[in-house]
Amino acid sequence: MRITGGSWGALQHLNAEAIIDHCLNWMERIGWVRNFDRIARTASGPHDGIEFVDSEVYKLLEAMAWELGRNADAALEARYTALVRRVAAAQDADGYLHTSFGHDGQRPRYSDLEWGHELYCAGHLLQAAVARLRTGHDDELVSVARRLAEHLWNEFGPGGRDAVCGHPEVEVALAEFARATDEPRYLELAKLLLERRGYRTLGTTLFQGSDYFQDDVPVREAEVLRGHAVRALYLAAGALDVADETGDDALADAVEAQYRRTVERRSYLTGGMGAHHQNEEFGEDYELPADRAYAETCAAIGSVMVAWRLLLRTGDPHYADQIERTLLNAVLVSPRHDGRAFYYANSLHQRVRTHPHADDELSERAEASMRAPWFEVSCCPTNVARTLASIAGYVATAHDDGVQLHQFAAGDVRTRLDAGVLALRVETAYPRDGVVRVTVIEAPDAAVGIALRVPAWADGATLADRGVPTSAAPGMANVHRVFAPGDELVLTLPLTPRYTQPHPRVDAVRGQLAVERGPLVLALEDVDLPQGVDVEHVELDAAAPPIATDDGAEVTLRIRVDPDLPAVAADEIRARLRPYKDWANRGPSTMRVWIPMAR
Amino acid sequence: MRITGGSWGALQHLNAEAIIDHCLNWMERIGWVRNFDRIARTASGPHDGIEFVDSEVYKLLEAMAWELGRNADAALEARYTALVRRVAAAQDADGYLHTSFGHDGQRPRYSDLEWGHELYCAGHLLQAAVARLRTGHDDELVSVARRLAEHLWNEFGPGGRDAVCGHPEVEVALAEFARATDEPRYLELAKLLLERRGYRTLGTTLFQGSDYFQDDVPVREAEVLRGHAVRALYLAAGALDVADETGDDALADAVEAQYRRTVERRSYLTGGMGAHHQNEEFGEDYELPADRAYAETCAAIGSVMVAWRLLLRTGDPHYADQIERTLLNAVLVSPRHDGRAFYYANSLHQRVRTHPHADDELSERAEASMRAPWFEVSCCPTNVARTLASIAGYVATAHDDGVQLHQFAAGDVRTRLDAGVLALRVETAYPRDGVVRVTVIEAPDAAVGIALRVPAWADGATLADRGVPTSAAPGMANVHRVFAPGDELVLTLPLTPRYTQPHPRVDAVRGQLAVERGPLVLALEDVDLPQGVDVEHVELDAAAPPIATDDGAEVTLRIRVDPDLPAVAADEIRARLRPYKDWANRGPSTMRVWIPMAR
Repeated sequence: MRITGGSWGALQHLNAEAIIDHCLNWMERIGWVRNFDRIARTASGPHDGIEFVDSEVYKLLEAMAWELGRNADAALEARYTALVRRVAAAQDADGYLHTSFGHDGQRPRYSDLEWGHELYCAGHLLQAAVARLRTGHDDELVSVARRLAEHLWNEFGPGGRDAVCGHPEVEVALAEFARATDEPRYLELAKLLLERRGYRTLGTTLFQGSDYFQDDVPVREAEVLRGHAVRALYLAAGALDVADETGDDALADAVEAQYRRTVERRSYLTGGMGAHHQNEEFGEDYELPADRAYAETCAAIGSVMVAWRLLLRTGDPHYADQIERTLLNAVLVSPRHDGRAFYYANSLHQRVRTHPHADDELSERAEASMRAPWFEVSCCPTNVARTLASIAGYVATAHDDGVQLHQFAAGDVRTRLDAGVLALRVETAYPRDGVVRVTVIEAPDAAVGIALRVPAWADGATLADRGVPTSAAPGMANVHRVFAPGDELVLTLPLTPRYTQPHPRVDAVRGQLAVERGPLVLALEDVDLPQGVDVEHVELDAAAPPIATDDGAEVTLRIRVDPDLPAVAADEIRARLRPYKDWANRGPSTMRVWIPMAR
Repeated sequence: MRITGGSWGALQHLNAEAIIDHCLNWMERIGWVRNFDRIARTASGPHDGIEFVDSEVYKLLEAMAWELGRNADAALEARYTALVRRVAAAQDADGYLHTSFGHDGQRPRYSDLEWGHELYCAGHLLQAAVARLRTGHDDELVSVARRLAEHLWNEFGPGGRDAVCGHPEVEVALAEFARATDEPRYLELAKLLLERRGYRTLGTTLFQGSDYFQDDVPVREAEVLRGHAVRALYLAAGALDVADETGDDALADAVEAQYRRTVERRSYLTGGMGAHHQNEEFGEDYELPADRAYAETCAAIGSVMVAWRLLLRTGDPHYADQIERTLLNAVLVSPRHDGRAFYYANSLHQRVRTHPHADDELSERAEASMRAPWFEVSCCPTNVARTLASIAGYVATAHDDGVQLHQFAAGDVRTRLDAGVLALRVETAYPRDGVVRVTVIEAPDAAVGIALRVPAWADGATLADRGVPTSAAPGMANVHRVFAPGDELVLTLPLTPRYTQPHPRVDAVRGQLAVERGPLVLALEDVDLPQGVDVEHVELDAAAPPIATDDGAEVTLRIRVDPDLPAVAADEIRARLRPYKDWANRGPSTMRVWIPMAR
């Protein structure tokens, strides 16, 4: 799949033109790249940033690698190559690579497995190398990764340290690197690290128990995702890869059950996961406060990684629905429209207006207020960059006799089926428009299948073949026949805005409704309300259905009697809701996804 | 006021017989007392516990001092004296006293003002000395406190370090110690420390900003309490004491306005304060999740301290109402019925059953599940102990020509008015019963006033004088006449259970009702529901009024259709609610204060 336009094309363009550049400039400015030069002794001074800032450089390298695979821009190639060279120069002779452990004046290697993030960082380097290998390059970065993987094998493999890293990530990275390099030892190491976890070997603190690290229960025995959300989701992704490669269906089934329960009971309407600011953790089942939603951008990306693996495993289109919900709401809310500021935590409810962050301000922590240019812990911007750069990988799959389009992205799909090459062009302005047009460019002269996902919300969808529309129920709409170049399939998804009821057990939003339109969660911002009225002053007239507007919906609101509120002319108003992902792009505002119903 | 029986008498008995003993035994066992011996070189080994465990010993000394003032038990006196001796032996020659700074192998004094808690601990020692002075003793502990206060004056007074402590407490302690010793320099130091705060001089971290320490805005300029709740409330209490002693009405008015807004918008039905586990902080206005209520026991005690000072300042009975609400719900929920386990955080909603803690288990952190015998950070048990021991101090006040009974405690009140001695006996089984009988024991032969608080909830209250009841509106019911021994006033407060609506801006409990009875918030526990039904499976039939039972109320519940729920015979049941303060005394349970209304 190659994305050539549409909304995803625009986002990939933004990534290439702004986000990658923004991330690299910040990491140069605040010394996170220079950390590698210090180890290589081409720069001096103390290490900058916390223990895991290397991983941000690696995630950016991964983003660059995917982007170069999409568009071999010479200037980007030069920046990538220069950055790889600086990273490579910091690698120790035995393959170890980390800028804050194991060198003069630093703590010894692996002396703080709970918090040191050494294997976590290594994992992200391997992921960058995977991106390079998957886009057809076996370059210096891949060599660095091979040496690092060998070091990890020697250090943590059979007979080595009987230990795990406080932050899972290396498991999924090793499994992917094993696939990309065809080296079974890396898979074996991933499996070992996975199986060692859950026996409370990581030291706990006053605030972080074993569940924080998913070290409380072995992954195959757990019932639900718990603890630190990003850790839990990365671990689940790794477990699914190991299960897939080793044929361990029991492990895959266990993780699938955990993820299903998590989606059902521990995730937000946006797809966001992680209800607690404290420890960036999941809460209990149905504990989903809108205002204190942590819903970290990285957790949403982790959830997409898990759902993608389950989609590959099961073919169940609900996982593609979940990927879409998460990407279009919980992930895409993170970058500002100019790609130069990001949300880390993604609240669904902002009660007070806050101040924007200055362009050169390093933010102290994850605030659910305005997007920030950069953070002391800045995992999310580079995670957004690598996800956008690799988004084409989540769009389509192929079986022996057909292709499946899971996401709606404008571009070209080309694959070799048993019967021959099938090439398609997809044209769509989705999600702004519900029409997805698939034109056959090249087809075998045997019958093959072209399947398109019909999202669960798409009541009344139709799929037209040879110009004849037929009703398409949620699930996969599959057309299996002999196709000829020029044949068209047109999927039409109705984008009528709709009210969404919360689950009755979610206390936090009881008596409230959300408005969704197609795959987009909408939000109310006070910049769309009369002067002086904020989102706390209104209630929704649920008897009036939401009416489609160009980018969202219009609803009827009643203004609540409130001593804080200055006199307003009308007690009933019409107000526009716009996509949640776009909120806070017009200056500070108050915002609600869930709106109380008028009684 | 001397408490002789009733519910407060029983709690003071529990404190004397169990809680004080429990605290001392734990602190001996885990080395927190031994820390003093180590400084005195009568014991060896490293310091045990975090930096502020000295304060727990001091709060226990304060509890012992108040308890000895109530009942001069020789065995307790001996334990108190021995403990004072060990503390005194650790004091440095210049008056400095702290077991984890400033000695061999320790960090230098005042090298970590943000987190070291040195002045915080000093404050608690001064408070213990105040208790001793107020109960008629000027003993070794008072001498230690004088030397320590002199040290603080030299170190932080005019011309000394221009700095404050990360955790306010020493301000209120210095002001009270100044009163008790009649030494104006201690008040001056309290004022200095207060006025220095709010200029962002304390170093912040990734997670704790200046607001956490109330160092973001000077106390007289703030609009609401914010940041770490206990810190904010202790600081407010200190500010009120300084304002009172210096006649600084502007300061007092500012703090009163902050507290009023905090009570209105940032406190729970139980009186609890602090909506965030993260940083133990206040949330935004109206951000009051029941499930993640932190509502730390110590914050509730801090709120009582502030409300008491505002009651003294204004005479407004709403502050006495707030004291009662907070004590009877947010504070009294902390100790288990046997006084040997405590809540630290006080949730209003428990979704899952958890396991009890073993009697010898040191709990890692504040969990909102079962009460724990002791914590790594164990500020709450000793705070409960000193509060219960000194509770008589919150019951009554006197003016020149009368007494005011603010809380209903069985006991004796004796005071010298301008006209002569007025002595009263108060008999009541409140809050289990609504009758408060005040008998005059001794009275001047001039007219004086006896005023009783009529709580805001007490619709239909009556006050009988000479056997003739008259209606008593919420506020103060004052009888002003010449009394004779044997005269009786009988206040009758109707204890009809009532539904309470949440504020419409509190999202977290929208569509839910609480049940209150008199001053008590009631709670539903699943141990009072049919087997297999938990509090998540029921909805309240609000059309049926709550019916009084012996200790709470009975309501009508509908069982919600839920896939998790096994078949239950009835779809409508009657269930008993009991006082919130008593929950989780019958084994693990799920619990709700706010119950969703059936539609």
